[in-house]
Amino acid sequence: MNLVLIESDEVNIAGQVTLADARAVHLLDVLGVTPGTSVRVGLADGPLGTAVVTGVGPRAVSLRCTFEPTPPPRPAIDLLLALPRPKVLRRLWAQLAALGVGQIILTNAARVERNYFDSHVLQPTSYRPLLIEGLQQARDTSVPRVSVHRQFRILVEDRLDALTDARLRLVAHPHSGARLRDTLADRGASPVLLAVGPEGGWNDFELALLESRGFQSIGLGARTLRVDTACVVLLGILREAIEKSSEK
Amino acid sequence: MNLVLIESDEVNIAGQVTLADARAVHLLDVLGVTPGTSVRVGLADGPLGTAVVTGVGPRAVSLRCTFEPTPPPRPAIDLLLALPRPKVLRRLWAQLAALGVGQIILTNAARVERNYFDSHVLQPTSYRPLLIEGLQQARDTSVPRVSVHRQFRILVEDRLDALTDARLRLVAHPHSGARLRDTLADRGASPVLLAVGPEGGWNDFELALLESRGFQSIGLGARTLRVDTACVVLLGILREAIEKSSEK
Repeated sequence: MNLVLIESDEVNIAGQVTLADARAVHLLDVLGVTPGTSVRVGLADGPLGTAVVTGVGPRAVSLRCTFEPTPPPRPAIDLLLALPRPKVLRRLWAQLAALGVGQIILTNAARVERNYFDSHVLQPTSYRPLLIEGLQQARDTSVPRVSVHRQFRILVEDRLDALTDARLRLVAHPHSGARLRDTLADRGASPVLLAVGPEGGWNDFELALLESRGFQSIGLGARTLRVDTACVVLLGILREAIEKSSEK
Repeated sequence: MNLVLIESDEVNIAGQVTLADARAVHLLDVLGVTPGTSVRVGLADGPLGTAVVTGVGPRAVSLRCTFEPTPPPRPAIDLLLALPRPKVLRRLWAQLAALGVGQIILTNAARVERNYFDSHVLQPTSYRPLLIEGLQQARDTSVPRVSVHRQFRILVEDRLDALTDARLRLVAHPHSGARLRDTLADRGASPVLLAVGPEGGWNDFELALLESRGFQSIGLGARTLRVDTACVVLLGILREAIEKSSEK
């Protein structure tokens, strides 16, 4: 935990908050805070800041926070992801938040099993703590927006333009010869929407529909990766390219 | 499973093998093979090939394999990794094999807990099936060599030169300003040794020792990633850079 992320309804107008959950335990047991210790904090979907420990209890820590005037920029990458197996998605939430995505758009696809939609990992009470965990790891405050879509065609044809303003749309496809880096070259730091299919890939209809809506197909070389590994690699490469081009 | 990986002691001189484990179940239940079906195979640390199904039983599949004359090249990336928590390492084995590493050199470090070395995930019987799973996903046959070292200084000072002939040595460090892509630019497809530290990072002594042995420090931007996420991102970026430069 490289940052204590605080929900806006936890902190009062004077910046005071008392934590009595896993965050307090981490502050006490791992960081060993005592009154007067300074710690990095952030407000969920708000600014970063610093806090001074004003009091400690057996499993509680009180903080007085000072926040920066403006929040950090939201990540410039949105992810359109065919709903993975619940076990895989559970592993992904924190990693996606840590890598930095503005939103996670989960969709049905021909190779997605219907019962995946019934999983509790799609409940905000289940995934929000994992997103927060990832943000605390990466020192960010921008909680990815999450939406779940059971009809791929309606999502792509009717909803996507309203959901995201990313100008560059990419679809990962194992058999594509176009490489991510070449496609990104000289594109600058424009927001990106990255589509990643299910295990076994998008089917021909889905791929054609995505391409008809402006998605460019990109591959990752000769090796076929598991969906979660591919997501992490692609987001890592995208982030490096975007950070690099915004440094110019 | 995009490839059936077969151990060399399973197949006879005529290329015949009968599988009666998870591979057979996958062939029958997922791929629905019947006599005459052709499937992709590979020999562990040997060549790729194809096989024809010659017989099926309730939980068994017989194959006749034809292998290519030469094995695929071994991955040009070696990983020096501070031993992660057992739970994290268990998740990593298949992903490392899928991403393609020639060897995995696991080491102690100041921020590695001693009891991690007692975990059964360090037993070949535990990790080899996971490495095989990753290779079957990525259609490769090169099983990463694994070694475990309890003394960081002895490893780095006395053993490393014999273990790996990678000319480019990189150490991932969150606070490094040097970016991986810039460091890789124009380096060509030379073998790479990548060092990734424990959660919390290498300490100053370890970092200095690595740098004294030719490791260049590289970072991944502003976000601090969990060790497993960082490994996957770094190996993904390295692989893309190496494949790209070998296409030139």
